[in-house]
Amino acid sequence: MAHRARLGSLKTPHGAIQTPAFIFCATKGAMKAVNMDQVKDAGTQIILSNTYHLMIQPTADLVEKMGGLHKFCGWDGPMLTDSGGFQIFSLGHGSVAEEIKGKRQGGRANSLLKITEEGAKFRSYTDGSYHLLTPEKSMQIQKKLGPDLVVVLDECTPFHVDKKYTQKSMQMSHRWALRSLAEFDRGNDGKQALYGIIQGGVYPDLRQESVDFVNSQDFFGHAIGGSLGADKDQMAEVISLTAPRLDRARPIHLLGIGGISDIFMGVRQGIDTFDCVHPTRMARHGGALVKGAPKESLQIRNAQYREDPTPLEADCGCFTCQRYSKAYLHHLFKAKELLGMQLITLHNIYFMNQLMTEIREGLRTNTLDVVETKWQSCKR
Amino acid sequence: MAHRARLGSLKTPHGAIQTPAFIFCATKGAMKAVNMDQVKDAGTQIILSNTYHLMIQPTADLVEKMGGLHKFCGWDGPMLTDSGGFQIFSLGHGSVAEEIKGKRQGGRANSLLKITEEGAKFRSYTDGSYHLLTPEKSMQIQKKLGPDLVVVLDECTPFHVDKKYTQKSMQMSHRWALRSLAEFDRGNDGKQALYGIIQGGVYPDLRQESVDFVNSQDFFGHAIGGSLGADKDQMAEVISLTAPRLDRARPIHLLGIGGISDIFMGVRQGIDTFDCVHPTRMARHGGALVKGAPKESLQIRNAQYREDPTPLEADCGCFTCQRYSKAYLHHLFKAKELLGMQLITLHNIYFMNQLMTEIREGLRTNTLDVVETKWQSCKR
Repeated sequence: MAHRARLGSLKTPHGAIQTPAFIFCATKGAMKAVNMDQVKDAGTQIILSNTYHLMIQPTADLVEKMGGLHKFCGWDGPMLTDSGGFQIFSLGHGSVAEEIKGKRQGGRANSLLKITEEGAKFRSYTDGSYHLLTPEKSMQIQKKLGPDLVVVLDECTPFHVDKKYTQKSMQMSHRWALRSLAEFDRGNDGKQALYGIIQGGVYPDLRQESVDFVNSQDFFGHAIGGSLGADKDQMAEVISLTAPRLDRARPIHLLGIGGISDIFMGVRQGIDTFDCVHPTRMARHGGALVKGAPKESLQIRNAQYREDPTPLEADCGCFTCQRYSKAYLHHLFKAKELLGMQLITLHNIYFMNQLMTEIREGLRTNTLDVVETKWQSCKR
Repeated sequence: MAHRARLGSLKTPHGAIQTPAFIFCATKGAMKAVNMDQVKDAGTQIILSNTYHLMIQPTADLVEKMGGLHKFCGWDGPMLTDSGGFQIFSLGHGSVAEEIKGKRQGGRANSLLKITEEGAKFRSYTDGSYHLLTPEKSMQIQKKLGPDLVVVLDECTPFHVDKKYTQKSMQMSHRWALRSLAEFDRGNDGKQALYGIIQGGVYPDLRQESVDFVNSQDFFGHAIGGSLGADKDQMAEVISLTAPRLDRARPIHLLGIGGISDIFMGVRQGIDTFDCVHPTRMARHGGALVKGAPKESLQIRNAQYREDPTPLEADCGCFTCQRYSKAYLHHLFKAKELLGMQLITLHNIYFMNQLMTEIREGLRTNTLDVVETKWQSCKR
């Protein structure tokens, strides 16, 4: 299947992204423990921010008034925002994020009040105020935020619902996508490009219907969304049913997936870009990505690193590995020093960017298998 | 009194410090939200770490095994460690730190178990284990940590005790200082230099006795410690009774004081170096140092900064002011983003270093009054 894997260059008003590429999550217009100069120095090509968080705090109007998100947060490279839907529905459905990763949970939390044809009504996580997010509103907000790449509003269907719900939800998401596209076109000044989203859960016929839908519409790119199943095998199956059928003239993004093995799987299916909070979130909890480890990472708090004078990875060129020992990082986490979060975040960002660089080199020289073995010697 | 103010160059094995200088607190071998490259880029000449914290976690033996504190934490410039006494006694006495700043509190907490002629017995703040810190032990630990400048163990007398206690305590501190000096000389390899501490609280005759003591002993430098009184006026009085009488052939440090007005006062009394957690601690709570403000700072969380597109200070050359608006920093603190702590910390470090640079320039050109007016237009 490696023949579907591809090299590319995705051009934006803030520069080109060499693909396959990883997109890092600057959820609220910031990458938590590191500043944008550090993010860039670690080799990052593109970041994403979340419409849901920013529309509530500090609000899209304020960001626009401050000159847009690029200027506000000090990032002058390519940027994507999501539609806001994912957070509304994941908070509302309990935890869609967990379910997408295969952990089944039920129930609806209080923040999502109602989903209607018009949009999603929810309460702010900060002050409890009421908000209605419609496809049009999502486009307007993303326009104000000003990223290069924007995404249509969809209902992020949870895993535990049945096929009938998934189908109805998908069809509404398609109608929302058309409304998003119309609103996007209305305000289009050529500075932003719009991604459509493929829904359909784990059902092959629904995925096909959704693929046909996005291919038939004038989207710049396609993002694979919705539930990807209960485990990595099912995810790989859903991706293999979806990615190869998408219009290959357009960039393809896989939403919310960023494990090393998942990335090799996705690249082989023709995915161009990936995003996931995992590399930076785990860093803040002491999880450092390392090549060839069973869980793709090590936990720096573990006692075995207390007196370890070596860097996280001997062959790593990142800021952290060039300066600090595992013993020091272990000390920082044991002592609850904020610097520990910064240093492992920098390592994990560099690690992911280096992974993608070597994947691109592997594609260029037709040695992707060799690259995969190097980065995943312990893969299942 | 400005004639006592002086320029100097304090040479250490890790480079010379141009004085007057500010010493930043890397309490546990880290400056919380920023790494040592950032600390250096912000103009820092010298940092200090705390023996008390490091002897408990990760332990002096571990730091020594890892090649010493400089290597462990990635700082290759001049470094000082304190004796460990301040934290033991401040935690034990309730809050000496608060008292030194003029806030009277009483009582003894549980961590300090007993002060005897031998030393101070206390319990670890991490696991409750028992420790005895003696003058000899403090010297041995500081030797293992490996900084350039080390400090004798003293009892840090609280403010609320009477003259009799202060005198007895001071006299024991003098005996501890002699033991510290003997132990220091025993292990002296020329790589470290020892500071004696002046005690005596707010009592002129005791301060004189302590000044005479340190002047008579072979210390490299002198540090003014102990209670400095209930308010800034009393502190200025205690300093004026102490600093001018110290041997001016030796560098003079003022322990734990770092307000802008306090620094001008101290410089005019001949103080060469200052240290205080205030600039970096307040940064982590949204307090940004600014020239000419009533409290020497602004609170970025205040609503007035929500839509403020200007940097913290228009004339500041720091990393943060070159890139970010007050509106963005306000957003980061409202959104509880860790990056906010990093960015204001960087500003406050640069601010203090710039203050000291301009003070030195003011001394060089005999324009200290002009410098003071610029940095303190709202002084009382």
